[in-house]
Amino acid sequence: MPTFLAVDAGGTSTRAVLVDVSGRCLGYGQAGAGNPVSRGIEGALASLEHAVRAAMGAAGSPAEGCASAVVAMAGASVHSTPGPLAERLRRLGLKGGVVIDADLLAMFFSGTYQPDGYALVAGTGAVAARIEAGRLGAVADGTGWLLGDDGSGYWIGHHVVRAVVAALDGRGPKTALTSALLTALALDPAGVGRHQGRPETVQRLIHELYALRPVELSRFAPLAFAAAEDDVAGLILDRAAAALAGTLAAVTDGAVPGPVVFGGSILTRGVRVAAAVEASLPPVLRSGGAPVLVSDGVVGAAVLVLRHAGTAVDADIFGRISRTLQALRAG
Amino acid sequence: MPTFLAVDAGGTSTRAVLVDVSGRCLGYGQAGAGNPVSRGIEGALASLEHAVRAAMGAAGSPAEGCASAVVAMAGASVHSTPGPLAERLRRLGLKGGVVIDADLLAMFFSGTYQPDGYALVAGTGAVAARIEAGRLGAVADGTGWLLGDDGSGYWIGHHVVRAVVAALDGRGPKTALTSALLTALALDPAGVGRHQGRPETVQRLIHELYALRPVELSRFAPLAFAAAEDDVAGLILDRAAAALAGTLAAVTDGAVPGPVVFGGSILTRGVRVAAAVEASLPPVLRSGGAPVLVSDGVVGAAVLVLRHAGTAVDADIFGRISRTLQALRAG
Repeated sequence: MPTFLAVDAGGTSTRAVLVDVSGRCLGYGQAGAGNPVSRGIEGALASLEHAVRAAMGAAGSPAEGCASAVVAMAGASVHSTPGPLAERLRRLGLKGGVVIDADLLAMFFSGTYQPDGYALVAGTGAVAARIEAGRLGAVADGTGWLLGDDGSGYWIGHHVVRAVVAALDGRGPKTALTSALLTALALDPAGVGRHQGRPETVQRLIHELYALRPVELSRFAPLAFAAAEDDVAGLILDRAAAALAGTLAAVTDGAVPGPVVFGGSILTRGVRVAAAVEASLPPVLRSGGAPVLVSDGVVGAAVLVLRHAGTAVDADIFGRISRTLQALRAG
Repeated sequence: MPTFLAVDAGGTSTRAVLVDVSGRCLGYGQAGAGNPVSRGIEGALASLEHAVRAAMGAAGSPAEGCASAVVAMAGASVHSTPGPLAERLRRLGLKGGVVIDADLLAMFFSGTYQPDGYALVAGTGAVAARIEAGRLGAVADGTGWLLGDDGSGYWIGHHVVRAVVAALDGRGPKTALTSALLTALALDPAGVGRHQGRPETVQRLIHELYALRPVELSRFAPLAFAAAEDDVAGLILDRAAAALAGTLAAVTDGAVPGPVVFGGSILTRGVRVAAAVEASLPPVLRSGGAPVLVSDGVVGAAVLVLRHAGTAVDADIFGRISRTLQALRAG
């Protein structure tokens, strides 16, 4: 029975699984960041190789190799240049072709085997898609920290630090986020002296925060969740949820009722934002049932590789992929 | 009669003037950007030297040199390290000391000789100060593009590009800013094809805009002023004005009634934002008369150098500085 290779190459980690045509997962491996944009092409390929070798090792490396592969990654819609990646996978034993799919599609198929529906993913970035016949029909946002990603981890973290600077400055209301942020940065909340008409704490915050890459502000998103009873933090989370609902609404088509798959830490780790987005779903999207929460795109990558190989993935195969993968990951 | 050197070293240009104790301006010179942060220390010193030589040349280089100097620049409150700057000015004929003052203070004293009042400056950045006894009593915002500068040229430009990306994405209302921005970037507004579920125009915009340094987004602020009848553009300008009014309110003290000095292109080139901020001034700030609009800080740098030399700058001296400088700049 031929085996297939499915890889979910994310900005934080890379996950690989070997799967057979019945949906039985044979081996699973994991490595560091696999996104060529954030990690660089060589680093991404090294992570890919590490995760694939681990998966093959766990599966007992079938001598006949893999029939074909899917690698799911962000930005696939722009940079569909699988050359070096295919070359690396061939050296690892891939016999057939490799398809690079959007991570958004893999996220969707981690939650459902149905070919139509919606995915809303809010991690460091935020993006929504309508999936039709197993492909991206419409995509909204995912335009990055500078131009969009409304309601994402970056967006929340950015609003947290701006709210704290405004509060210290007297431009904004006092907030529990101030001591939380100062503590997170190991700054003294009691440093209330003034220098040239300005609180010293503001100067220190400016120094610390401009030393980060902008996207790193996403690390402060959890401060808003932790202080959710605070008015300022609560408003940031409510506005994030409204923005995410708006992004999903931008791809909603009355002819496609769902299901809706939620992914990314902003939607899956705390209930507040996910519940608010769910409550604001238009009726057409509620008819498909409650949103399905998924933690990553590895199940979906396995669905995609089987679909590309001509297998009609049904409830039975989908259930087998999910169960056997869960067992491998737990093992 | 001794002469004094006053320099306004800005992010776009550097202006120098020689002034005597009566307030008579003897020579004026101008050069490129003089801010060490944006230009680098060597570039800033070269601009300084160029502007000072031009001013001295125009004044007929008094053989006795300059008694003392003031250099006004942004970030003076943080980096008060006049070492290399003083060395360069001594080689040009400065006999006495040099004081580095905040550009905000120079902007204030370009509008008034009174020692107490307020300055609100909105150029690429945005900052407000309360001036007491000729010094910065309280400062709000000026925290940079990432953390604040609410209502600034960057802020407006950033909101313009986000509004356009959201409109193209279907997440935000249609706006006249879209064709204005696409035209400004020489992109084809008719490029409405879709690739992987996303409008191609969005991809091109992402490519063009991430190639800029973030602060360069301030170049798109004029698009909002030009499209002010457009609902989206009008709302951006109204929110900018509200933010600037809030920044000024954060430094307002009932015991200091004004005057209020407005500087920076957002407040001085179009009337819309300035008028909205003026309309929202608290009563205590209206008692000092309408805000005074100033185009730069060179008059104020001259006021500061005379004040530091012990001259009580009054209406008479202030008027002479303004008139004689205007004549030199016109000539």
